[in-house]
Amino acid sequence: MNDPRPIHPVVLCGGSGTRLWPVSRKTRPKPFLPLIGDTTLFEQAVGRVAGDARFGAPIVVAGAQHTDLIEAQIGPAREHRLIVEPMGRNTAPAIALAAALLPPDDIMLVCPSDHHIADEAEFRAAAVAAAALAQDNWMVSFGIAATHPETGYGYLHRGEELPGGFQIARFVEKPDLERAKAYLASGEYSWNGGIFAFRAGALLDELKAHRPEMAELVAKAVAEGSDDGSRFYPASEPFAAIDGDSIDYAVMENTGRAAMVPADMGWSDIGNWAALQDAMEQDADGNSVRGTADLVDCRNVMASSDGPRVSAVGLEDVCIVVSGDEVLVTTRDGAQIVGKLPGAVNQ
Amino acid sequence: MNDPRPIHPVVLCGGSGTRLWPVSRKTRPKPFLPLIGDTTLFEQAVGRVAGDARFGAPIVVAGAQHTDLIEAQIGPAREHRLIVEPMGRNTAPAIALAAALLPPDDIMLVCPSDHHIADEAEFRAAAVAAAALAQDNWMVSFGIAATHPETGYGYLHRGEELPGGFQIARFVEKPDLERAKAYLASGEYSWNGGIFAFRAGALLDELKAHRPEMAELVAKAVAEGSDDGSRFYPASEPFAAIDGDSIDYAVMENTGRAAMVPADMGWSDIGNWAALQDAMEQDADGNSVRGTADLVDCRNVMASSDGPRVSAVGLEDVCIVVSGDEVLVTTRDGAQIVGKLPGAVNQ
Repeated sequence: MNDPRPIHPVVLCGGSGTRLWPVSRKTRPKPFLPLIGDTTLFEQAVGRVAGDARFGAPIVVAGAQHTDLIEAQIGPAREHRLIVEPMGRNTAPAIALAAALLPPDDIMLVCPSDHHIADEAEFRAAAVAAAALAQDNWMVSFGIAATHPETGYGYLHRGEELPGGFQIARFVEKPDLERAKAYLASGEYSWNGGIFAFRAGALLDELKAHRPEMAELVAKAVAEGSDDGSRFYPASEPFAAIDGDSIDYAVMENTGRAAMVPADMGWSDIGNWAALQDAMEQDADGNSVRGTADLVDCRNVMASSDGPRVSAVGLEDVCIVVSGDEVLVTTRDGAQIVGKLPGAVNQ
Repeated sequence: MNDPRPIHPVVLCGGSGTRLWPVSRKTRPKPFLPLIGDTTLFEQAVGRVAGDARFGAPIVVAGAQHTDLIEAQIGPAREHRLIVEPMGRNTAPAIALAAALLPPDDIMLVCPSDHHIADEAEFRAAAVAAAALAQDNWMVSFGIAATHPETGYGYLHRGEELPGGFQIARFVEKPDLERAKAYLASGEYSWNGGIFAFRAGALLDELKAHRPEMAELVAKAVAEGSDDGSRFYPASEPFAAIDGDSIDYAVMENTGRAAMVPADMGWSDIGNWAALQDAMEQDADGNSVRGTADLVDCRNVMASSDGPRVSAVGLEDVCIVVSGDEVLVTTRDGAQIVGKLPGAVNQ
C-alpha cells in the first residue's frame, strides 16, 4: 500500500465578520485580524497544517480585494496556490473551483479562515480521519463537540458508525433554545462548523448531481480561466452567472453519503464580540483585555483597544471595543446585532 | 437713599473636576470646559451677571497655571480683575484676598465657576436679595432648592425669617440617604451650593474673629503683593504659610450671623458624569449625546465624544466618554469614583 496522498488544505477567505465591527472592516475583514493571540485567523488557518507532511501546500480561495492581505500574511516563502474569485458566490462555488483544479483522486480539506481552533493537534487528527472517509467518497463534515446550547449554529445528528466517524442522520438548522438544550443533553448532536473533507472528483460528482447548472458554470469558469503561475483567475462571466449557495445546501443536505468525524478541539467561530471574549484569556473576575485598560468593579467585561486607554467602572457583561475612529460599547446580548449598526453598515 | 453700590462678582476657579476625567484634566480643568452648551462653566459664571448694571466687573481668583485660559475665555474687551494665587489654599483665603482688595462697604458675590445654573434671572434675583442681607452684615449663603435626596452635599436648615431670606439654624454635613430623604420631605432644608454674599469688611471681621492667623497671613500677602494693573499677585511666602480651609468651616459654621436666601434656579454642581447627564437634554429614552453617537436599545445612557463615533447597544444607566487618548465607560453609580481611576490620578 502506498503512502496516502497529501491532504490539500483549501482555505476559504469569504468571512466578512461584520459583527466584529469596528475592528473587522471591509478593507481588513475578520480573517486578516489578530483577534486571538498575535497571529491572524488566516495565518492560523494556514499554519495549523504547516510543517506536517500529511498536508500539502494550501490552496487559498479569496476575492481580488484581499489578495494583497493574503500574500502579505502567507509569507513569501510559503508555497501556496491562490484562486482569485471575481466576486463572492458563497461556499459551494468556491470549493468547486478548488476541486476542479485538483486531480480527481486528491483529498481536499476545506477550512474557513474566520474560526479559532485552540487544539491544533486534535484538528489534524480529525482531518486525517476525515480524509480517510473522504477517500471512500464520503462527504465529510467536522462535527464540532457542542459545549453549550447555542441557537446560532446548525447541528449534525449522528447516524450509523463509520470507521473514524459516523454517517450524518440529519442536518438541523439553527434550533430554538429548548431544542438546543435537548440536543446538548442527548450527546448525539454536534455543531456544523463548516470544515469539510472531500475527494475532489467525488465533490464535483455530487455537485453535478444536485446543482448541475452550478457545476457546469464552475467548469466553464475554470476552462476559460487564466493562470499566471501563482494565481488562478476563473473567468468572470460564467462565475458571475452562478446562483450562489452554501456547500451545506448545495451538497451536504442532498447527498446520500454525508458523514462526520467528531472533533473536540476548542473551536470557536468568534461570531461576535461575546464569542471572542469567551475565547480570550480571562482573569478571576471574567474580564479580558487587549491593549491598555483599567477595569474597576467589573465582571465579564471585555476591553479591546488599538490605542487609547479604556477605563471602565461597575460594568457587567459588556464588551468595549476601540478601533480607529470608532468606539463600540455593547452588552454581550447586544453583540449579535453589531453588524446592523449604522457604523458597520455604512462603511 | 442712594442707588445701591454694584455687587462685585468674585469668581473662584479652583475646581479641579477630577470626577469629570477624562474631559476635565489638569491642564484644562472643569471650569474651562463647555460641558453644557457651547460656553464653558467659567464663561457662564462670568456671563451670568454681565450686562446687568446691578453687578460690577468680575474679580477672578485663580492659580497661575490657569491665567491664560481665563484671559482667553473672559474676552479681551471685558473689564475684570484677576487675583493670581501662588498656590491653592481652599476657598476661605481666596475669598479673603478678594475682600481685602475691595472697599470694606462693598458687597461681594462669591461664585464658584464649576457649577451650572439653568435659570440665570432667578440667580440674579437671589443675588440681589443676598446682597441686601449682606449689607446688614449677614454672612449669606444661597440655599439651593433640593430636588432629590442627595447624600453628597451639605444641607442648610432654615431658621428664623429675615427680609428676603432666613437665618441658618444649622449646617448639616453630607447626610446618609435616610436623613437626606427626611430633609427633602420636611421642606426646611436646602443644599449648600457654595455661593455667598458678604460685605467685604464684615467677612474680614468674621475671619479675624474665627481664623485670626489666616486673616493676618492674608492681610500680609495683600500688603506685600504686587499689582501690574490688571493682575494682582499676593505675596507668596505669607500665602503659602496659610493653613487652608473652606469658607464654610472657617466662617459660615462659626458666625452668629449666618443667613440664606432660597434659590430655585436649576442648579447643578455637575459633580460627576451622571450629574452632567441629568443636566443635559435627554431624548424619550433618557439618552443624552454630545458629539456623534448611535445608541440602540439603550436607556439613560450618556455618550460624549470629542471625535470618534460612539456606537452603543443594550446599555442602561451607563456613561461613555471619549476624550483624546482616553475612553471611559462607567455605570451612573460608578461615576462617583472616576476621580480615583489610574488615568485620572496619574495625569
